[in-house]
Amino acid sequence: MKKLVVNSENPYEITITRDLKIDEYIKTKYGKSKILVITDENLAYIYSEYKNIPHYIINAGESSKDIEVYYKIIKFLSKNNFHRDSILLAFGGGVVGDITGFVASTYLRGIPFVQVPTSLLSMVDSSVGGKTGINTEYGKNLIGSFYNPREVLIDTRYLDTLPEEEFANGLAEVIKTAMIGDRSLVEALMTDQLEDGIENIVEKSLKVKIDIVQKDMRESNLRRILNFGHTIGHGIEKLSDYKIKHGEGVAIGMAMISKAFHKKGLTPKDTLDILVALLEKYSLAKSFEVDKDSLFKAILIDKKTEENYINLVYLENIGMAKIYKAGLDELKDILQIAIDGN
Amino acid sequence: MKKLVVNSENPYEITITRDLKIDEYIKTKYGKSKILVITDENLAYIYSEYKNIPHYIINAGESSKDIEVYYKIIKFLSKNNFHRDSILLAFGGGVVGDITGFVASTYLRGIPFVQVPTSLLSMVDSSVGGKTGINTEYGKNLIGSFYNPREVLIDTRYLDTLPEEEFANGLAEVIKTAMIGDRSLVEALMTDQLEDGIENIVEKSLKVKIDIVQKDMRESNLRRILNFGHTIGHGIEKLSDYKIKHGEGVAIGMAMISKAFHKKGLTPKDTLDILVALLEKYSLAKSFEVDKDSLFKAILIDKKTEENYINLVYLENIGMAKIYKAGLDELKDILQIAIDGN
Repeated sequence: MKKLVVNSENPYEITITRDLKIDEYIKTKYGKSKILVITDENLAYIYSEYKNIPHYIINAGESSKDIEVYYKIIKFLSKNNFHRDSILLAFGGGVVGDITGFVASTYLRGIPFVQVPTSLLSMVDSSVGGKTGINTEYGKNLIGSFYNPREVLIDTRYLDTLPEEEFANGLAEVIKTAMIGDRSLVEALMTDQLEDGIENIVEKSLKVKIDIVQKDMRESNLRRILNFGHTIGHGIEKLSDYKIKHGEGVAIGMAMISKAFHKKGLTPKDTLDILVALLEKYSLAKSFEVDKDSLFKAILIDKKTEENYINLVYLENIGMAKIYKAGLDELKDILQIAIDGN
Repeated sequence: MKKLVVNSENPYEITITRDLKIDEYIKTKYGKSKILVITDENLAYIYSEYKNIPHYIINAGESSKDIEVYYKIIKFLSKNNFHRDSILLAFGGGVVGDITGFVASTYLRGIPFVQVPTSLLSMVDSSVGGKTGINTEYGKNLIGSFYNPREVLIDTRYLDTLPEEEFANGLAEVIKTAMIGDRSLVEALMTDQLEDGIENIVEKSLKVKIDIVQKDMRESNLRRILNFGHTIGHGIEKLSDYKIKHGEGVAIGMAMISKAFHKKGLTPKDTLDILVALLEKYSLAKSFEVDKDSLFKAILIDKKTEENYINLVYLENIGMAKIYKAGLDELKDILQIAIDGN
């Protein structure tokens, strides 16, 4: 069992283990509080340990991250007398975590929630950083908040039942984290057998992210390096109508942007080679058939500020990322180089 | 012109003036940002100075504080390309401020907003403390957040068009603030002519509230004294089906709880007398026909924690409030004394 601490405004602990007895743990630690587990139908089917705790089941998949499901949960809480000191427990992947976190952050102006991530992506990505959110017809996570959980409980056993595609999804974020912030994680990914080393890899990934987020909770600057691969990645996800999953998009985005920045002389060859080797080792995609103008448009829709430039993250070295401010014309050129290098 | 600073996580300024040229001010200070004024139909009708700024008009009244109006504004922002650095400006009373603040706190996980309160209640109450919120069918402000504005601009000229009933509504909060925290404000209220002294009174009220909220943003303890008069007040508002306005409820609540605590020997006679004199001077109600059991039930519905006691605020002296933890049986007794004293 390992413990990490996230020192934010309200510090919290992340426990990484392989034998969490969640029902006992909850009884012992939160037995005096009213508690509600929020999970999805698939997980509710696989795991029975929650059956004796009050639970609320949402449909599996991104479509649950919407205002109607949100409002239904809020009303359920009122109807059942949940108070400010009651606790929500998000048991699931990113969707469950994002909507539960948003409910927790806004019900009675904020009640505590505990996160029990079950996918690799949610373990390494959404358990640090406090991002909660739901989607609207205009895009993903357009409504949300920054709100930290009371604690995060990671049991890597949950990965045993994770579909392979979902596992790859999470690995792309692990590779990203390694490449932008931790050479030793890059080495572990190159050599470790995942079956034995997954606890170690989750821990190292979390440490990098904790380090970055502690310094910059609200994404004002440093935190932006976490977007490595995401600008092109999100564009491609959108163009594929989300048939391309987030991890796959990020993998392709990292490869494309790194090829472009290598051509610009800013990303060294050995760094690009290691990135490509990792993507290949874990069978992640590195390219996507796309034309420059569609990609440019898809990227601009996703732009969240009014500035007339865009922040691109590139690798200056293995484990070291930098931000490059590209004007919109320059962005077009960079995309062309990235596509030509496909 | 007076300036106050609220030192929260993100400090901000409150300007109190009588000749804010809001359109020029916005152009000068926020001219480079995309801006949206949110206001209600009544204000839009009275004040024309916003006509040249993009604006969004909601219906006047509490019914606008709901999830549908919220979601419509959110979609309007997406459709019109509002970004993280765009600004919302809440021009109105509590309803406009509460919903605009909640939109601002959740759109793209938080964008800046400027508050221009137009009612006395919103000037002295909702411009400090960062409370935003909307209602559900289960009650008021059951959804919301703590989120501070970028700045608050108070122009007391707006009070000139405020209906008398609304003015009284705000005065109840001013009297509350004085009685719990500032003897000199009590004296000003006893002697000043409101027409000339309103800037002074708004400033003093804000100072008391800033002082309390700075020490306790999330209502963990000290901030609870701001609830003086509110426990019984909210109960009465609810029992009257909100025909009794918030300020009136608070006035009645303050009088009733103070009579009860005077009987208990905890509130001195001169303190009670001054409170009653102020309520009389400003023609505010001091009593309400109600039976103990209905009031008890209405108060418990409003309870926001699972504890088996309730925090009652009482006056220990003029300008000095304390918290009294009453078990539920004791609460019943206190309510009976309060009702008997009516």
